[in-house]
Parts: sequence; structure tokens; C-alpha cells
Amino acid sequence: MLAPAALIARTRDGLPLDSGELRDFVLAYTRGDVPDYQMSAWLMAVYLRGLTPDEASALVDVMLHSGTVVDLSDVAGRKVDKHSTGGVGDKISLLLAPLVASCGVGVPMISGRGLGHTGGTLDKLESIPGFMTGLGLDRYRSQLADLGVVMIGQTAEIAPADRKLYALRDVTATVESIPLIAASIMSKKMAAGLDALVLDVKVGRGAFMKTPERARELAQTMVQIGTRHGVETTALLTRMDEPLGRTAGNWPEVAETIRCLRGETGEAEDVVEITVALAAEMLRMGGVADSVEQGAEQARAALADGRAWDKFVRLVEVQGGDVRTLEDPDVRQAESPSIVVEAERSGVVTDIDARKI
Amino acid sequence: MLAPAALIARTRDGLPLDSGELRDFVLAYTRGDVPDYQMSAWLMAVYLRGLTPDEASALVDVMLHSGTVVDLSDVAGRKVDKHSTGGVGDKISLLLAPLVASCGVGVPMISGRGLGHTGGTLDKLESIPGFMTGLGLDRYRSQLADLGVVMIGQTAEIAPADRKLYALRDVTATVESIPLIAASIMSKKMAAGLDALVLDVKVGRGAFMKTPERARELAQTMVQIGTRHGVETTALLTRMDEPLGRTAGNWPEVAETIRCLRGETGEAEDVVEITVALAAEMLRMGGVADSVEQGAEQARAALADGRAWDKFVRLVEVQGGDVRTLEDPDVRQAESPSIVVEAERSGVVTDIDARKI
Repeated sequence: MLAPAALIARTRDGLPLDSGELRDFVLAYTRGDVPDYQMSAWLMAVYLRGLTPDEASALVDVMLHSGTVVDLSDVAGRKVDKHSTGGVGDKISLLLAPLVASCGVGVPMISGRGLGHTGGTLDKLESIPGFMTGLGLDRYRSQLADLGVVMIGQTAEIAPADRKLYALRDVTATVESIPLIAASIMSKKMAAGLDALVLDVKVGRGAFMKTPERARELAQTMVQIGTRHGVETTALLTRMDEPLGRTAGNWPEVAETIRCLRGETGEAEDVVEITVALAAEMLRMGGVADSVEQGAEQARAALADGRAWDKFVRLVEVQGGDVRTLEDPDVRQAESPSIVVEAERSGVVTDIDARKI
Repeated sequence: MLAPAALIARTRDGLPLDSGELRDFVLAYTRGDVPDYQMSAWLMAVYLRGLTPDEASALVDVMLHSGTVVDLSDVAGRKVDKHSTGGVGDKISLLLAPLVASCGVGVPMISGRGLGHTGGTLDKLESIPGFMTGLGLDRYRSQLADLGVVMIGQTAEIAPADRKLYALRDVTATVESIPLIAASIMSKKMAAGLDALVLDVKVGRGAFMKTPERARELAQTMVQIGTRHGVETTALLTRMDEPLGRTAGNWPEVAETIRCLRGETGEAEDVVEITVALAAEMLRMGGVADSVEQGAEQARAALADGRAWDKFVRLVEVQGGDVRTLEDPDVRQAESPSIVVEAERSGVVTDIDARKI
């Protein structure tokens, strides 16, 4: 391996590293043989100079293989996940995972905590009394086989190099780099053992990506990485100028999910519309629908006839959650005013700009 | 102070920090309150985004005041130093300091070690048996008052923030940044108590700055910083496509200096030409010549009549060097083949492009 300073200088000067060099450098960092101060200089060079597709792919590869790569091949059927770049009020995962599973496609979902002012799927799930997200990878695999859906938190075995890099990026102003974001997301997702992935890339005032150009660039980078690694990947760009749906906050978002799953959609049409669009992609990639249109029909049917709701209740039950709290979500909301964070918002988002990459 | 990550983000985005913010950030780093990994990310952002003149000036200010700022006001006369951006075979300081002192201008010179393949003035001086460069600041002041010239090494009291930053830059590929180079040089020089400074900015294949544009930018940045801090500063751009003079290596360069001081210039006209040009500036700024032309005449006279040689011998003697070795430098060279590093070179450099900034 070239000396770290020589590798940093190449990236600084806009010259690509070859895959082996990049891999050795990141591995040496993961082992602690390259210090934080060299990695952070490299990360800033990446932030300002970018990475080539080959470099981004090599970075994913080394992070992906820095820990356990789950093999789900003995679980029948195709396994498809969704990842959202996140935003206030984004409770889509809560609705989508049981919906897609209820249509016969396995959904192994490893989610994160909230970042900044946006809540994380884990935080929302844990607002259901008793719901456990800290399940290990054995349980992840067995529950997926039994129930067709599992929702857990990031485990220490998955992509430890990404975790170490992310912690450094967080304190060195190098988070908002498209290749670094893409590599971080994709390395974790691919270590989780998926066959296919749909990306919900949010764009707009309430999203991390403020412009369609940036959102499209991020989406394309991730699709490219997934494809190169043999994971079928598609992306939808969805507008997020306002919080999604009618609520923001952990339990209020669970309550809204419950209402949507029961067909009491009310003013949360945007949530359902995006959920169905993502589910349609997942059902097509999962092999149970021949087209996105057919996938959308199947998803709407599963929402309408209660199959998605049943799967959600089973999921909560199997992961230790108190299903009685699901019966009348508004009671719990009234009882627990401290966790209600009703977003200030001017209206429901209905203008969804979903484009296939 | 803003959080370090927020300051890093500003520089990353090309937005200037205000002087107070920059000062607090660098001071916190010097104290150890900001870790290396944040500073190195900032340094890379500076490398790729630059600094405004105000920022560069604030950086100099904080580094300059991070340690002892020598006050030479009780030493009579104006004190003038030279700094060269360095290159192979650059032995100008050895010749210039005694020459200028012999014309009545005080030369307090604090020099560095070699960097990379270029030798440092200290290394060259120490090839004279017994010559001591590790003198403290008290001796620096008293010898300047007594002899009019002193040549010592960097001391721990001078600009410790610069030393800490430089060590980090060295391993993070952030050395070759014009504002960082300029700030590093100028902070050390201004802490040394000078009234005026002439800069020898080398340009060409054998120099750190490969193009006249880069060399001019560095020169202008340093002149600007000096002027802002009340130290009269001028710069000459001198070409360095080949090693300077006829020799490269510690003792061979001392030997060449001796020959030049004795008027045995031989094929080292380039060394004398640049030395006289720099001396002329120093004598003008030092107040003993009314013009650069007059300064050049004085310098040539001091070389011709042996005053410069006498001052050199006295300097070596006062700093503990064995003056007998100066008598026949070629003897020592033949006796010490291991320290002879004769450069491979195609010819003498005579095309000197000296321009006042």
C-alpha cells in the first residue's frame, strides 16, 4: 500500500485510487493502523473532489465485508428491503414492511435511529410498549423465515467499518457527501442479505437532499452500486417539502400507521400513495407481481382486505409488543402527551413526484 | 466559538471564518481541546478551498502569538532576515547572512532543517565541526547585538502552534497549500523579532513551486501578511530548474560558500548573483542603502574586499565552529566522502528571473 499521505494526496488532486489501494487504506483504518486524522483528511478530500463509481464501489465492498455478511439464501423466496433517505414524519417503513410481507415477499429490515430532528424507525417501533428491536442476526433470519418480515436495529456485526467512518464523518463536516452517503447506506443494506432494494430518495425543503439534481445523483449512485454488487436496486424520488402524512413524533406516527393499515386513511393519502408506489416496486422485484402496476394493485388489495393490518399485528406480537395498545391508538396518544410532537405544517403533501431511475 | 464541525463546514463550503472564530479554533487545537482529526479535515478544506487574506492573517496572528514573540527593539539598528522557499543546493543563507551583517544591517536568522531531499541551513552549518545551532533566545539576542549576525535553529518557544499544525499537515497531504505555507513561514519569521524580511521564492523544476503563477501567488500572500503585521516584506522570484550553484550536500555547500566568499566564484555565478540581489533588498530595507542599486554595490564591495568573508569566519568562531576547517575546504571534502552528495546536474543556472512583487 502507498503511504496514507500519498493516497490522500491522490484523492485531493482528483486522481482515482485503484480498488486495492482504497480497500487496503480503509481496512487499515478499521484495524486502527491508519489514524483518524488521516482518514478525516481523506474524507474531506472525498467530500470536495468526489469518488469515481469504481472507488465508491470499492468503498462499499470493503465496508460491507468488514463485518458479517448475512446469507439468507436458505430462507425461501426473494428478500426485498426499502431504504429511505429520511425526513420528518417518514413512517413509511412501519406500513410498508408488513404490507409487502403480507403479499408474499420477505422483508428483512435493519433500521436506524433518528438523526437530528428526524425520528428513526427504531424509535417509532419502540414507542409500542414491549416492542424489541435489539434482536440478533439469528432471530433476524428465523423470524424472516417464519413470519416473512422482521424489523431490527443495526447490530455491531454489520459493516463495522461504516460505523467507525460515520462517527468520524459526523464530527468532521463530511457527512453530506453523495458518494459517502451512498456507500454507507449500500454497505449496510447489502450486508443484510437482500436480493433487491428499493430506495425512497426524498427531495425538497423537508429532506436531506434539497434539489432534484442532488437527489437524482444520490439515487443514481446507489442504484449503480447495488447493480454492480448483484442486488437489484431501483429508486423513487419522492417530494418532501412538508412532513409526510399528518403526524411527526414516535407514537403519533405509529398511530397514523395503524389508521392507514385499517383503511382510516383520513388526510394521510400521501403516506399511502408513497407506500403503495414503493410496495409495487418491491413486489415486482420480489417476483410476485409481473409489473409495477400489478404490484400496486396487489398492495392496495392487501391494505383494503386487512392482510397488511394482520401482518402488522403479528409482527408487533412476535417482537414482544403489546398489541392491546394498537386497538385504540388515540387513547395512548391522549395518555402520553409528552411523546406527542405534532408537527407544525401548512397542509398535506399530495404532490408526489415518483420517478424511476 | 461555533462547534468545530460547524467551522469546518464553513471553510469546506468556501465561506470565510471571522478572525475571532479562526483564532479560537486554532488556539483550542493548540491546547488539545480540538482533536487532530477535526483539524486535519479543516486543513484539507483549506487546501482545496483556500483562505481569504483576512483568514490567512488571523492564522498567522494566532500561530505567531502561540509562543514567545522576540522583542529585539533594544538591539540597535534595523534587523532584516531572508527566507527562501528552498530547493536543492540552496546555500544562499550561508553567504547572505554574514555579507549583509558585514554591511551594517543586523541579521537574526532562525533556520530550519532539511525537508525531503533538500538540505537545511542548519544541517549545512553543522557540517562545520563544532558549529552549534541549538542556542537559546538569550544568546540569539546577545550575539545579534555583538556580532550583527546569528544563525540558530527553530526553538520550542517560537510559534508552537505552527509546529503542531505542520506535523499534522505533513502526514495528511496538506503541506502544499499556499495560504498554509505562507502562514507557517510568516508566523515563525515574525515571532523572531524582525523589522523587515526579504523572501526568495524559488520557481521551476527544482523548486517547490513549479510555475511562476504559483510562486507569485505565494510571494504575494506572504508580502501581504508581512505588510499587514507591520514587517516590511519584499519578495524575489528566482528560477530554480537545476540545483543552485555547483554543489548539493551539506559540507560541499559550505565549501562552495567559502569559495564564493573568497572571490573564487568559479562556475557558481548564480549563487553570487542571487545573493547580491537579496542583499541589495536587505540593505535598502535595513536603511544603509538608499536604493536597491546602491545596496547591490555595497554587497559586491563587501564580497570583494573580504569583509563578508571575515564576518563569516567570526560567525563560525563565535558559534563554536572549527575555523581551521574553513581554510582548505577541499581537504575536508576529500576526507569525508560520505557526506558528499554531488548532485547530478546538466549545467549551471544562470537565468535568474528576479522580480520585485
